[in-house]
Amino acid sequence: MFQQRLAPEFFDRVQARVTERLVAAGLAAVLTDDPEDVAYLTGFFHHPCERPVAVWLQADGRCVLLLPELEREHAEAQQARAEFAVFGEYPGIRPPFAALADAVGPLPATTPVGFGTQISHARLAAAQDAVGTADWRPTTLITEARYVKFAEEVALHQEAARITDLMIAGGVELIKDAIGSGCELPSEAELAAHITKIGTGTMYAEHADVVVVSMLAGGLVYAGANSSYPHGLPSGYRLRPGDTFMLSLGCAVGGRFVEGERTFVLGEPSPEQHRYHGVIEQAQRVGGAAIRPGVECREANRACLDVIRDAGLGEYLRHRQGHGIGLGMHEPPWLEDGDPTLLEPGMIVSNEPGIYVPGHAGYRISDSMLVTADGSRPLTSYPRDLDSCTIPF
Amino acid sequence: MFQQRLAPEFFDRVQARVTERLVAAGLAAVLTDDPEDVAYLTGFFHHPCERPVAVWLQADGRCVLLLPELEREHAEAQQARAEFAVFGEYPGIRPPFAALADAVGPLPATTPVGFGTQISHARLAAAQDAVGTADWRPTTLITEARYVKFAEEVALHQEAARITDLMIAGGVELIKDAIGSGCELPSEAELAAHITKIGTGTMYAEHADVVVVSMLAGGLVYAGANSSYPHGLPSGYRLRPGDTFMLSLGCAVGGRFVEGERTFVLGEPSPEQHRYHGVIEQAQRVGGAAIRPGVECREANRACLDVIRDAGLGEYLRHRQGHGIGLGMHEPPWLEDGDPTLLEPGMIVSNEPGIYVPGHAGYRISDSMLVTADGSRPLTSYPRDLDSCTIPF
Repeated sequence: MFQQRLAPEFFDRVQARVTERLVAAGLAAVLTDDPEDVAYLTGFFHHPCERPVAVWLQADGRCVLLLPELEREHAEAQQARAEFAVFGEYPGIRPPFAALADAVGPLPATTPVGFGTQISHARLAAAQDAVGTADWRPTTLITEARYVKFAEEVALHQEAARITDLMIAGGVELIKDAIGSGCELPSEAELAAHITKIGTGTMYAEHADVVVVSMLAGGLVYAGANSSYPHGLPSGYRLRPGDTFMLSLGCAVGGRFVEGERTFVLGEPSPEQHRYHGVIEQAQRVGGAAIRPGVECREANRACLDVIRDAGLGEYLRHRQGHGIGLGMHEPPWLEDGDPTLLEPGMIVSNEPGIYVPGHAGYRISDSMLVTADGSRPLTSYPRDLDSCTIPF
Repeated sequence: MFQQRLAPEFFDRVQARVTERLVAAGLAAVLTDDPEDVAYLTGFFHHPCERPVAVWLQADGRCVLLLPELEREHAEAQQARAEFAVFGEYPGIRPPFAALADAVGPLPATTPVGFGTQISHARLAAAQDAVGTADWRPTTLITEARYVKFAEEVALHQEAARITDLMIAGGVELIKDAIGSGCELPSEAELAAHITKIGTGTMYAEHADVVVVSMLAGGLVYAGANSSYPHGLPSGYRLRPGDTFMLSLGCAVGGRFVEGERTFVLGEPSPEQHRYHGVIEQAQRVGGAAIRPGVECREANRACLDVIRDAGLGEYLRHRQGHGIGLGMHEPPWLEDGDPTLLEPGMIVSNEPGIYVPGHAGYRISDSMLVTADGSRPLTSYPRDLDSCTIPF
């Protein structure tokens, strides 16, 4: 059995990485309520809701997890790597963050305390009211600490990629089976449900201690004109011969995400389908080669999207080359014009140029790329070329 | 076919309700990036991500929807009821909120502008940088406007309740079929997948224009000791004779959620199972009767949980009676000690007392309750008593 949950000791190394950054930034502590940060720092996964769950990590290494009574035993069972500060219920007569204040104790007003900038206005105000005066400063240091993955995390991503490949293959198989048996072709929603079942089924069969997150396995499945909306959502539309369609799938193993996306044609591709598919294949190839240590994210993006612009299809661009991926399905850095971050070995980013032709279809190919010492490699391996992605009808 | 998507004109009435509150609060405009608020005000549903999607609603009725180029055609196809302000990509060389500033124009520095308090620190700072000086004030007025549902919304909730009942019945059927055919009993994850398929399958078969949201249909399925974590997540654990297990299900129709939760026993219930189940049944009955116009949320909560405390099971309480439900799976008001909100006709709140006996099991019964002119009624109707919720083995 593949073990999804990382050992409690792993989180000591994660916390050490972040406390190093705290010291460097001159902060005494940092507060975050981002569920991904909480999982990163302590190994505790939960359903985010209105009840705050937050981590207070001090530069001296002390780590406090604020959580509701509702989650206490759940966090114990997951061996969350932190002291617990537990509140009763939300909203409560006594505010939830008072439990954190009790654990932390009074702070001198000049204490420099960072907070993750994704915290909501309401939560930050509640935390500041309870913990009291301090020199509160917005920081993105935990987010940045997450850029370069630990080896243990890469292994989770690699397993997620293996399952994503199985999901794509399973979707193709379902269509081929329908054609072979003369049955009705599946709808987008049926394909999506089938693929999800393959992903979660594989995990529950082959993995110990499946870590359940917002989306365990699934994705966008869209065909024909529906696929021309980049973030379109599966509908009851049933595949038809001649359709371009996308399987834009992914899953999370131990909370670590991978995306794998391929664009297919059902039946003999038209010259138009050949042209569009060919251009994104080339853009993805060039974009992948541009992902290497020392390259700025915006540079990789430019190289990748220039292929599409140079082919005269710039009007069909709707988005950047890609984004970081990890505990977040989307996380920084961004492979986009506005992000000068330098790529480093151990980062994982998506490489997913796409074009969207209104009324016709969308074309996108995506792999999650691991930046290596001298380049990058895709974690998913399903073939990308149109020959392999043509389903005879 | 049941129509999930509300007509564009519906949103004029929603916006009118909110602008009335803006005027009353002395605000010239309000900004929100809460995806549920965006769907409430404009009818636009999307996958939230790092690209901001936000609504700027003015007291004079003007409504501007900020969205990325990636979502423009998607919003058009959904007939989102607003002027669009479109930015290119995230993070962008020009910041996304500049597109909103262009649409809104320069504001006198004294203009009172509200912002929803769920906005993140980073987003609020970006919006303020772009839109410029104004008298920015945190507000919860949109959240509060959502408390009392329009009749069109109640119809969506009622349909979601019908499907939730089908999902519970379908889960029970799967177990009975396994017993009847002598097959292996299903695992939590298999039950969850089966139930999800029933929910989404029913929608795609019987509904026009399914509105896809974060969770269309699904829920928590947990058995035995796993169910003693209130927010435990489905595992590979396979049901065993003698188990207490919970089907804690729900779905969203037109984005409007309903929960329906029942606690079952597989085989002849033990005296202990009888006792625990009986106490939560009674607590839920008393709690339901307490939900009526003019009652404070905290009062209903007290009446409901007192049944459990008076039965000597207070040590097994882990949470409040319930919460508001609507476009949010959980939304205010809160049926909890800290919430003095008065219940009003048209509100929908969950009534879900539960107890959690470590190492044994959890017991919870939940219905989404519509507050009526003189009381309340459950939208879901699956039987709640232990006789009905015992599966002979």
